[in-house]
Amino acid sequence: MATADRPVIGRIPITAIEPSTPNGFPSKAFDSEVVTFAATVFREGHGVIGADLVLERPDGAVRAVPMALVGEGTDRYAATVQVDSVGLWTWHVESYADDWATWIHAARLKIAAGVDTEATLLDGAVLLDRLADEAESTAAADAAAAMRDTERSPAARLAAADDPRVTAALVDAPLTSLRTTSATQELDVERTRAGVGAWYEFFPRSEGARRQADGTWRSGTFRTAARRLPGVARMGFDVIYLPPIHPIGVTARKGPNNTLHAGPADPGSPWAIGSADGGHDAIHPDLGNEEDFRSFVETAKNTGMEVALDFALQCSPDHPWVTEHPDWFTQRADGSIATAENPPKRYQDIYPIQFDTDPEGIVTEVLRVLRHWISFGVGIFRVDNPHTKPLWFWERVIREIRTENPEIVFLAEAFTRPPMMRALAEAGFTQSYTYFTWRNTKEEIESYLDELAHETSAYLRPNLFVNTPDILSEYLQFGGRAGYKVRAALAATGAATWGMYAGYELFEDVARPGSEENIDNEKYEYKPRDFGAAEAAGASLAPYVTMLNRFRSAHPALRQLRNLHVHHTDNDAIVAYSKHLPGTYTRSGRSDTVIVVANVDPHSAREATVFLDLAALGLPTDGLFDVRDVVTGARWTWGAANYVRLDAFQEPVHLLVVEGPHR
Amino acid sequence: MATADRPVIGRIPITAIEPSTPNGFPSKAFDSEVVTFAATVFREGHGVIGADLVLERPDGAVRAVPMALVGEGTDRYAATVQVDSVGLWTWHVESYADDWATWIHAARLKIAAGVDTEATLLDGAVLLDRLADEAESTAAADAAAAMRDTERSPAARLAAADDPRVTAALVDAPLTSLRTTSATQELDVERTRAGVGAWYEFFPRSEGARRQADGTWRSGTFRTAARRLPGVARMGFDVIYLPPIHPIGVTARKGPNNTLHAGPADPGSPWAIGSADGGHDAIHPDLGNEEDFRSFVETAKNTGMEVALDFALQCSPDHPWVTEHPDWFTQRADGSIATAENPPKRYQDIYPIQFDTDPEGIVTEVLRVLRHWISFGVGIFRVDNPHTKPLWFWERVIREIRTENPEIVFLAEAFTRPPMMRALAEAGFTQSYTYFTWRNTKEEIESYLDELAHETSAYLRPNLFVNTPDILSEYLQFGGRAGYKVRAALAATGAATWGMYAGYELFEDVARPGSEENIDNEKYEYKPRDFGAAEAAGASLAPYVTMLNRFRSAHPALRQLRNLHVHHTDNDAIVAYSKHLPGTYTRSGRSDTVIVVANVDPHSAREATVFLDLAALGLPTDGLFDVRDVVTGARWTWGAANYVRLDAFQEPVHLLVVEGPHR
Repeated sequence: MATADRPVIGRIPITAIEPSTPNGFPSKAFDSEVVTFAATVFREGHGVIGADLVLERPDGAVRAVPMALVGEGTDRYAATVQVDSVGLWTWHVESYADDWATWIHAARLKIAAGVDTEATLLDGAVLLDRLADEAESTAAADAAAAMRDTERSPAARLAAADDPRVTAALVDAPLTSLRTTSATQELDVERTRAGVGAWYEFFPRSEGARRQADGTWRSGTFRTAARRLPGVARMGFDVIYLPPIHPIGVTARKGPNNTLHAGPADPGSPWAIGSADGGHDAIHPDLGNEEDFRSFVETAKNTGMEVALDFALQCSPDHPWVTEHPDWFTQRADGSIATAENPPKRYQDIYPIQFDTDPEGIVTEVLRVLRHWISFGVGIFRVDNPHTKPLWFWERVIREIRTENPEIVFLAEAFTRPPMMRALAEAGFTQSYTYFTWRNTKEEIESYLDELAHETSAYLRPNLFVNTPDILSEYLQFGGRAGYKVRAALAATGAATWGMYAGYELFEDVARPGSEENIDNEKYEYKPRDFGAAEAAGASLAPYVTMLNRFRSAHPALRQLRNLHVHHTDNDAIVAYSKHLPGTYTRSGRSDTVIVVANVDPHSAREATVFLDLAALGLPTDGLFDVRDVVTGARWTWGAANYVRLDAFQEPVHLLVVEGPHR
Repeated sequence: MATADRPVIGRIPITAIEPSTPNGFPSKAFDSEVVTFAATVFREGHGVIGADLVLERPDGAVRAVPMALVGEGTDRYAATVQVDSVGLWTWHVESYADDWATWIHAARLKIAAGVDTEATLLDGAVLLDRLADEAESTAAADAAAAMRDTERSPAARLAAADDPRVTAALVDAPLTSLRTTSATQELDVERTRAGVGAWYEFFPRSEGARRQADGTWRSGTFRTAARRLPGVARMGFDVIYLPPIHPIGVTARKGPNNTLHAGPADPGSPWAIGSADGGHDAIHPDLGNEEDFRSFVETAKNTGMEVALDFALQCSPDHPWVTEHPDWFTQRADGSIATAENPPKRYQDIYPIQFDTDPEGIVTEVLRVLRHWISFGVGIFRVDNPHTKPLWFWERVIREIRTENPEIVFLAEAFTRPPMMRALAEAGFTQSYTYFTWRNTKEEIESYLDELAHETSAYLRPNLFVNTPDILSEYLQFGGRAGYKVRAALAATGAATWGMYAGYELFEDVARPGSEENIDNEKYEYKPRDFGAAEAAGASLAPYVTMLNRFRSAHPALRQLRNLHVHHTDNDAIVAYSKHLPGTYTRSGRSDTVIVVANVDPHSAREATVFLDLAALGLPTDGLFDVRDVVTGARWTWGAANYVRLDAFQEPVHLLVVEGPHR
């Protein structure tokens, strides 16, 4: 019905299939994610139709799931499935004419009205004959005979269709026709950590670093840094992410606070990669050797955490590639190599890679480097500034790595305009940094969390970092302890993955003047911290962070991305959203529902009425239910409209668990 | 860079290309339509990029049009072109790195700051060498030498780049690289009438019909109906559309007001097609013979109008197909043929076609019938209820007809849910009936006209009928003469095609009780009208309609679909929108701008301030301009905010022409 160069229109058209991606890459999900599959299905005239989702797991097992009409008159059909197997799933939609439903709908109206009685019952008998044949059902044969029995009243003849055995036979062998199949779709299901996790970032050189008698520092090492791992694990983190661990260049090395000239004892920025000691496949001698790193990875694993390495594809002028592969850099007319710049500023400690002269050579080397670290047990790479490298490069590299190692996770540290952010995610990145740190007002938070949960969740997994060595947002600089609580609570519950850079728990909120990053930044200095003393003094957010991660562990609804639902409140600083997971998808079989209500004004107490969309919580729309606040342990009885008062100087956030109907 | 089964990511990615269609059919335009082509183009890092639209006309001529960035930070590039040739156009987008713009941007900042001076100027000299070579420009060679001249100041060396001859050479041979080509797109450009026109519907049997002495009627004929054509043409209509002209069935024929039993003299509904006198390829004997029809078509052409025939693919029980092709209908278990029905109601005068037993046979016969009428000079088919036939059928039939006769226009008379409405348009229909008659409030009109002009205009061309034999909206039933004016003015200006069914100009506003159609409906009766007498008595809307069609003829901006722009007003019954066409696209070379302001409350006078988005009108945002109301001839001086008072009992609509800046 279509020529080769025209789209195929099936007998019962199937359009607007979701999940889908903007440019046709496979959509994504993570193991245990609950995914809604949907399509717009319609046909000519008034016949009843139906649709099935047909899913093929990576192991070849095929399952058909009936799709339900989303709402009267929408032509939109959907089915929800929890994916439970890692690998490439394929799926399609099948539409069909529901011959039995079409007949019974008309027959009920016509028999009741006394219109067209005999012919209608005969048509039904023929359908029952077909059912008797296809389902090998004697009940259907009996019903067909009863429907033809002119001794009985029309109503009695029609009632033969209601025999429960006929209904059962119809489930086994539905009377359908004109079955139409959509194009096959792909769904790339990755391991759970691709979508769910709590990340902690720290600089191993700071942990155990000591200032010596002469004022210089002795660097921390993998051995000393490993002593911090149990403390991080106790806070409930899943991933420990390390800035680059490679040798640091000396040429044009940056000094404290990003000054242009480093003193002889300044350690330099870990992102200025490469020196006489080696490049991206080497370990900074101060941190230890390969055996020390292997042991660090092992220790992390023993505490229940995974190590994520930074992958920053740029070089210091001292990187071995500069001499070995000069064609990987931009050669200038005067014979020099182009440095990074933001004219008129130049960053003379960094040579960006130039991909267009020897793309294959660079791909080969990058694959070698990544596989080198994978061999140490590294399963996660946090990729620095991927938006400054060509998009095709990441598509290629990530695809080739995942062909051999499908478990590898790549987090895109891109902060740029939406098209590139989204394209990086669609083309291969497992996770993405986001605009979260700059979304601070109620309206910004509501619309952004909604966008992340729905508009882009088929391909972009947000990792909501609350801070980084590069980002100390104005909100944190001026929001005080309440601000730190609010942002951590939103990050830990607003998506399924969040992250924190060491020092957040110590409320480090002083910025270098005129910048949006910490003063005396750890990027250029050693920064040992006494976490234990702060906690003992009651000056640490660690207990709150621990509570947040426990909350995440206890509630599977928080380990989903697409189930966020924003609720209305009547205060312009009070945000409310929920996450609900029906019992079908929980291990306990009980539905899991949490409600987050946050006062995002860190300087005052606010009151509001929170208007809950109870259907989105899986609750009856007319009843009351009990909630417990995991922050304070308080219990309340809630309904459709609820008064809240959140004081920034007490607890700015309610983290509510729905405990069940009020008794 | 991509395997066969993965989307290609080019070096400088090009995404979100528009115009596009939801399911990948070619997008559409009509001859003389102004079309905006756009794409999202981005690259890694900060280098300056650009994009070209590359258009290939049906005659093979290729043209590259530079695309402009739509707005800072959007990554969206667009170019606007008036298509001027009927046939299949192909086009693609090319993105590129703008090496010269990248260099000059950095160079200006660096030379001014005294940073990296020598190397920067040398890089520029190398680019100028390249320009000298590629553009064979001695000016570029001179500039390169000047830029290398260390005797001069850096500022003077940089200034060599500003030589106007260098600028001209850069236009001839832009210094670009990494050129990337998008997938090829298709644009189906149809004749102007596909998108622009004023339609008039009448029943030829009514024109010249006479009641005889015995109370029965003598039918009007093509010959008597042709006498009405000059009057219709004088009102400014382009298309004269006739309900089915075929023999009408006698079995179960409908009587006056849709009653179940016709008297012997009742003419029946023209949509109950087929009798012993023939089917879809025959002419009702009452109307005349083929020669009479040919002459009618000729007369219409001589008055400047085209004939549109109804194509209603359904049969009366007396249609020849019923005996010749019983497999084209639904056979029931009792041996009868299924009638049309909306259970429990049955329409026993109509047998719907069943397409699934002999689809090829039906396609072949329908192509034969359509070509038969095309041979009479019919270029337009108004297809009755296409949404009750399979979508593939229309895609196939329209494509096959247009392969031989690309000029044929098909109007879809579908009133159903959006997915089918849109799919019919995308899959082939030239024009579509719309929800316009049921969009009556300010908010409904604004959002619907906006949707038609922008969201769906790449594939759905609205034909805004104000009434039909099936639709006498509540607004018209109860809106009085003001209501009739308002709806006609909105229809004539809100899209590029509008339509009217005879009787509208006589304010025929009485509905059959409980229905949404005229009482004593012409579908079942003869209905001769004395248009001249009404006009003489001042009881006709014909002068207003004539004024509307003249307004359309005088203003090319009104003969575009995509240029509608809604403006804010502060009264909830006052709608304001404009249509603007820059002088580049008008024959006169002067820009053409009209502003429509309508009081959609037909029962009162309303006042408002109309806040105009002057940029959308091509006007300076700070100036005053003169407007003339073509309804009354009044002239005013307008600006960004304008008081209006529109009285339903005087003139409810301003039709304003922007005459130019106020002097």
